[in-house]
This record gives sequence, C-alpha cells and structure tokens, in this order.
Amino acid sequence: MVVVGVSKDRDWGGSHYLETFKEYEYAGAVYPVNPKYAGEEIQGFKVRASISSLPDDPPIDLGIVAVPAKITPQIVEELGKKGVLFAHIFASGFSELGEKGYKLEKQLLEKAKKSHIRILGPNCMGIYNPKGRLGFTHRLPLKDGPVTFISQSGGIAGRHSHIGPLNSYFFSKVISLGNQIDLDIVDFLNYFRTDPDTKVISMYIENIKRSGNDFVQLLKKTTKEKPVIIWKGGKLEAGHSAVMSHTGGLAGNIKLWRAMMHQTGAILVRNFKELIEMIQTCLIYKIPSNLGTAIITGGGGPAVEMTDECELNGLKVPRITEKAQKMINEFIPEVNSNLTNPLEFGAHGGHENMIKTIKVLNNEPHISSIMITNSPEWYISQGLDMDEVVNSYANTLPPNSEKNLISVHMSFAPRKETAEAIQEFRPKMIKKGIMVYNSVEAAAKSIYRLWSYGNYLKLRRYN
Amino acid sequence: MVVVGVSKDRDWGGSHYLETFKEYEYAGAVYPVNPKYAGEEIQGFKVRASISSLPDDPPIDLGIVAVPAKITPQIVEELGKKGVLFAHIFASGFSELGEKGYKLEKQLLEKAKKSHIRILGPNCMGIYNPKGRLGFTHRLPLKDGPVTFISQSGGIAGRHSHIGPLNSYFFSKVISLGNQIDLDIVDFLNYFRTDPDTKVISMYIENIKRSGNDFVQLLKKTTKEKPVIIWKGGKLEAGHSAVMSHTGGLAGNIKLWRAMMHQTGAILVRNFKELIEMIQTCLIYKIPSNLGTAIITGGGGPAVEMTDECELNGLKVPRITEKAQKMINEFIPEVNSNLTNPLEFGAHGGHENMIKTIKVLNNEPHISSIMITNSPEWYISQGLDMDEVVNSYANTLPPNSEKNLISVHMSFAPRKETAEAIQEFRPKMIKKGIMVYNSVEAAAKSIYRLWSYGNYLKLRRYN
Repeated sequence: MVVVGVSKDRDWGGSHYLETFKEYEYAGAVYPVNPKYAGEEIQGFKVRASISSLPDDPPIDLGIVAVPAKITPQIVEELGKKGVLFAHIFASGFSELGEKGYKLEKQLLEKAKKSHIRILGPNCMGIYNPKGRLGFTHRLPLKDGPVTFISQSGGIAGRHSHIGPLNSYFFSKVISLGNQIDLDIVDFLNYFRTDPDTKVISMYIENIKRSGNDFVQLLKKTTKEKPVIIWKGGKLEAGHSAVMSHTGGLAGNIKLWRAMMHQTGAILVRNFKELIEMIQTCLIYKIPSNLGTAIITGGGGPAVEMTDECELNGLKVPRITEKAQKMINEFIPEVNSNLTNPLEFGAHGGHENMIKTIKVLNNEPHISSIMITNSPEWYISQGLDMDEVVNSYANTLPPNSEKNLISVHMSFAPRKETAEAIQEFRPKMIKKGIMVYNSVEAAAKSIYRLWSYGNYLKLRRYN
Repeated sequence: MVVVGVSKDRDWGGSHYLETFKEYEYAGAVYPVNPKYAGEEIQGFKVRASISSLPDDPPIDLGIVAVPAKITPQIVEELGKKGVLFAHIFASGFSELGEKGYKLEKQLLEKAKKSHIRILGPNCMGIYNPKGRLGFTHRLPLKDGPVTFISQSGGIAGRHSHIGPLNSYFFSKVISLGNQIDLDIVDFLNYFRTDPDTKVISMYIENIKRSGNDFVQLLKKTTKEKPVIIWKGGKLEAGHSAVMSHTGGLAGNIKLWRAMMHQTGAILVRNFKELIEMIQTCLIYKIPSNLGTAIITGGGGPAVEMTDECELNGLKVPRITEKAQKMINEFIPEVNSNLTNPLEFGAHGGHENMIKTIKVLNNEPHISSIMITNSPEWYISQGLDMDEVVNSYANTLPPNSEKNLISVHMSFAPRKETAEAIQEFRPKMIKKGIMVYNSVEAAAKSIYRLWSYGNYLKLRRYN
C-alpha cells in the first residue's frame, strides 16, 4: 500500500487515509510518500521521499493518490513503473468541473493504460472492506457482513457505511466509484456477482458510462444469483443538472430505468430510506409466493389505514377462509371485532390471542405475509420481559413455514421512551428474522418489491 | 351533564367518562344515573336512581349514554322529557353490525326526533374540548389550540388528541362521530367554519352519510375561511370492506374524492403521518406564491437526493439568478461546490455561510421555499447552544419576508443521541416558525399541498 500525497495536517486527504490504516490495524506495509517530510513519521508510518525509492518486495497492490489533480498523470506513471496494480485517485478536479477537467482526465487515463495500471476514480473515496481492514472514514466497524454497496457518491458511500450497521446489517465491501474513467460499475458488479461474501448487492447510481447493454446483460446474469437493489439518483430535470456537476456524466431518464428493472429483475428504490429498508427485507425474508397479506391489529381506525397502505403499495388483503375464521372465533368473540381480514380484535386483543391467530394464518394458502403491529414502549410499561416477547413471536411460525411474519411500529409522537423502546426491540426482532418497519407503507413497498423480484425469477423459470 | 349507565367497575364505559370529568375538573354539575347504585358515590359524584328524578335547574345540556344498545331508545326518550338537548351515544351494537343493528338505529333516531333531542353517535367516543373541560380519555392536555379534528374513528380521535400536543399543536375541539345517524360531518364542519377558536380544520373520513353535494358546497364555503385537511380512509377494495364493518356506511371511490378536493380546495392526505405534517405546515407557513425551492446542503449525494424528492413531489428547483450566485460566491469559493441550485457547499459549508446564503435567497423572486438540512446532534456534539442556533435561523429572514424557511432532518440511524437531539430541536424551531420535517418527501409533499390550496384560492380570486 502506498499513499502518495501526505501531510502533517490531519485534514489533508492522504493523511486521512493513513489515520484509517492505523485505526483499523491494516496488516500490510504502508508507505506514505512526500519528499517534503521524507524520513519523518506521520501517524506512525515512515514517510518516503519518492515512489521510485520504495522497496520492490513485497509488491505493492494499491496506490492512493491524494495530490493536486494536475500532477496525477505523472504519479500514476511512476506507480506503474513500480509495478503497482491499482491506483485509487482520491483527487478531484476532473470532468466534474467541465471541459478543462475532462482533458486532464483523458490524459490521466492514457498514462494509466500505458503504465498498465487500473484506476478507481478519480474524485472518489475508495474502498471500505472490513475483512481487508481498508476504510475511507473513521469508526467504521471491522465486523463484516453480507451486503455490498457500490456508490457514485462518496458522501452516500460514507453515510451508508455508518448507517448499515446501525440498522443491523454489515458490509462485505463498499465502493465509492467517482468519475469511473477506468474501473466502472460494470466491472464491480461483475466481481460481486460471484463474490461468495456478497449476498445482496446494492447501488447508488447517477449514470452509466459504458454501453447500457453491457449493464443490462450483466444485471440479468446477476439477479439470477442474488438480489440487486438500485437507487437511481438524478431522476428529473433539476436533479439531472445536480448530477451533471456531481460526477460529470449523463443521467438517464427514469422511465428508461424502470423498463430496465423490469427486464432484468433488479429492484429499483427511490431514496436512501427505501434502500435501507429493501436491503433489510432481502436479508430477512423469504420471497413471498403471493401478494396476499393478513393484517392483525387492535382498533378499527388503524385497520382501515393499514389496509389502505397495503393496497396502495401493491399488496392484497383478501378475506381469510371460513375455516380460519371459525378457528379464530373459538378464542375471540365476534362482537365488536372483525374476523375476516383485516383482523380487528378490539378490546379482545392481547399478546396471546395474537400468537394464536398467527398460527391459524400459517395454514392459509393465499396469504404469504402476516402483518402485525407492535408497541415495544407498551411492553416496557407493562413490565414485560422484552426477550420473552421477541421469542414468543420468533417461535410462532414453524421453521418450515412459507409465510413471513412482518411487524410494523407506527410512532407519530417523538417521545424519548418510544425511541428507546423501539431501539431495543427492533434489533432483537431482526435477529430472530422479523423486520419491524416504521410504517405500513415501508413494509408494503418492500414486500411488494421482493415479490416482484421473485415473480421475475419465476417467469424466467430461474427458480 | 348526565351520564347514564355507570358502574363501580372503572372499565365500564360510563364510569370512564366520570373519571375524566374528575380528572379535568369539569365545572358544571355531573349526574351519574344507575338505579343499582342510587345514593352511592362513584368517582366522587353521587349516583341518581333515574333520569326523571334529576333536578330541573340548571338545565342539562348533554347526556352521555353508555347502556346496552337495546335500551338506548328508551333512555333517549327519558332524556328528552327532562329537556336534555344533546345525547352522545357511546354504546355500540348498531348499523356497524349489519341488518339487525340497523333496525335498532332507526328506532333510536325516531325516538330522538320525537323527543327533540339531537344525537352524536352511536358507537363513538364523543368530544374532547379542553376549554370546556370535556374529554374522552385520560391525560389529555387542558391547554387548547387552533386545530379542530373531526374523526369517524374513535381510536384515531383518541390517538390524535394525544399525538397533536406531542407534535407542538393543541386542539380547539376533537369530535368522534361514530355512525352519524343525526349530527354528522356536515353539521360539525358548518359549526367549525365560523368557530373563532378554530384556525385549521382536519378530518378523518370514511364515508359521507348525507348528500355528497351538501358536503361539497359546504367545503367550498369553508376553504375560503380556513384550510380543511382531509384524510380519507378506506380507499380501495379491501380497505373498503374494513370500513363497511367499522362504521357501517358506504365508502366512496378515491378518484371521486380527488376530484372533490380539486373542486373545493380541501387538502387530501393519505395517512396519519401526512395529516400531522399537513396540520403543522398550515399552522406554521405562509402560503407559497410559487413552487420554486432553493436547496442548501453539504454534499453532492444529498443534493441529488433532495432535488429528486422535491421534484417527484411537485416542487421546482430552478437555477438561482446570476446576481445571487455572485453574492454567494463572495463568501464561498466556487471550486468543489455548486452554486446554482441545489446549492452544495462541500467542505465550505458551516452555519454562518448557511445564514448568509438564506439572506441572499430572500431576494430571489422565483423562489418561495428555502430548504435546508439540520443535524441537531451535531450542534450538541460541538457544544453549541441550541437556543442560539435556533435564534440565528429565526432571525435570518426579515419579518416581512415572503419566503418560508424549511428545515429537514434526515435520520436513518436509530441512535439515542439523535432521537434526543431532534426532540429538543424540533419544538424550538417550530416555536420560531420553522418546521423540521423528517424527510424531504414529507416537506415537499406538504409545501406542494399548501401551494395548491393557495392556487385554488387565487384562481377563484378569494385572495
């Protein structure tokens, strides 16, 4: 590992990477380069005077280039001479600035090709790989997980790296792509398609630099193996112009993207929140075989709201069979409760009846999703043991059940007790395979999208 | 006030109301009636043997009827003989149960008409009126405010009564309508149209019992005076059937409702969350004269996301004038930041530059909304005084400004520090006339709807 362009100023790009190597206890050799500080130590690493003076053995895989844009072509040439395989160009000041930067970018690419060195960037944060102890920002967990994220925005790559673990999932790799002059989204998608450590691929894309057809064909091959979730940024007029300045490319039309998703089985989401919810959904749930959803809740008002939101987002709320109604009627008197679907229990609700009802619904063939509401702040106020509550839900459906048990926690009041209770409850439920969504809309959208992915695979006889 | 049907069991409907009269220190006379407990005290009120034995002076305005459905017609007749003007029928067991209940409901209405008594309900929670010290559930604030809520769901009426104050607004009145056999949504809307204590009317409606035309004509008259926000429940097939069982009426088609909103200027929202946000928006903001929105944020990724969400929800994000760009450029160097709109400040952000930029934008004629992002948890971590931060925003736009300053706090991570910080920050900002939305989508939807209301008034030359 060589970091070109370091300074004693911690805010300086190259020094920032040195800090992360120290923080994450990167196992390999790290060589900072800056003739100005030659022989001194920065962040515990000895600074070298030049690239040419670096040892030849062991060979250097990756160079992080954090020098002014103008001299990057020359640095890349020197790295090539040293036999470095990849250069991550952190520096900005290329095509994202327009015509002038575009020329420099071309020059950089020519030098890289001549020097047989592959380029990540320029204008990007690089790689977060917890197993490999690489990171682009502070305090990222070293625990790794099944999610890969490829991002055309360095800011979003950084935010997601922090936020994923707070939402109970960890990363295999996170890639900040930048201007994609060489290695691009197609290269990375192709790599992660067969990466055994990646179970779910997620992306933030603003534009495709290569032929759209390459991307479409590769998406088709990839969705056969694992779900691919795409958040497309820069959808409309002004967003488009924001994208232009951001990573210097042409953003596609959102309708085109929708058609592409339909053709490839990739899952399109609309914003960061939906991306997070979709990743959680893919990690937690079986692909539902139908859209049928049973709703269990306490009062008449919420039942109408939940049904509305399910149907507005593509799910169905069909009547349950008479057999199931009769079975539920055995423990819930019919007066003041509706036992067809949505199931409103009124005053006869309660935890035990909820559990019994879920068990009955497990045998309804036209229902794939059982949606319940939970109020963890209520469990706490009642002095219930949170783990016992969670376990009772986790053990309700038999292990071979084809249903997904889905919980929704609707909080409209910013109360401290509620925030704390849900914070304790949600990770516990997720660990047991039950997602707790913040709204019915979020739950319904995510489950509908998972069904659509499954439906795509079914129509193409892939599963 | 007479409460018919009380018991020593606190869970019994009538006794529950006695408890609230005690809790809220209702000023008038309260007469519980139940021959079984005649002469005893319940919740500090002396129980009477019969309605006929109640004192004639002072006259009794309202009777709360919490007896089994079957005997309600007889009770209403007795109340009528005593000269009681209104009866709130808490009891359920009427048309919401189908044919049999429908007959009883008709009987009840006939008796009421003969006895010259007006009916609220049956099958409803009644009235929350903080000024009048009336409430239908515990621990409601006695502080009153400018919002009125009319609800066809008792559960939602109760939830909203608690949740409004937690979202910084208070109620003038909350009405739970029930089956609307006599007093209906049109009567209440007509009353609140001229109620000086009501600045914003909000509703949860499942169906209209009276001629739709009465409702439309009245809505037209009302929106001239004050905004009317309607959350329509039971939009689609299954939701519809949930509504059928819930308050026993016919739910209309959602397309019809959208057309009705267009004709009347009422604001249609889709769920509880949107209702709360729309009420806050109507209370806090001036009606924007155009859809132009300026976005100020830190990094490239969020700028694209914010622009997308604004435009997907109807707002426009036009370029700002060159004059404004130049003024901003005086304190923000152009490299690595985009100064057209969205305004991305990159590393050059910071609180002071934000304030300066807002002042520049105040003179842009094609911009009505200035949207910023805030991270209160960051203010706390930096040891900043929250009140000072809030004041600096509050004093940025001059008092006569035609712009709305709108803040968005995007949190994707359920961290305790974040929850606590936003909980402190939001009410303070709202007090100073700046809403802090939880997402750009929520902000954009609400502002677009407020603009639509204003546009309706403008087209009809009402303002």
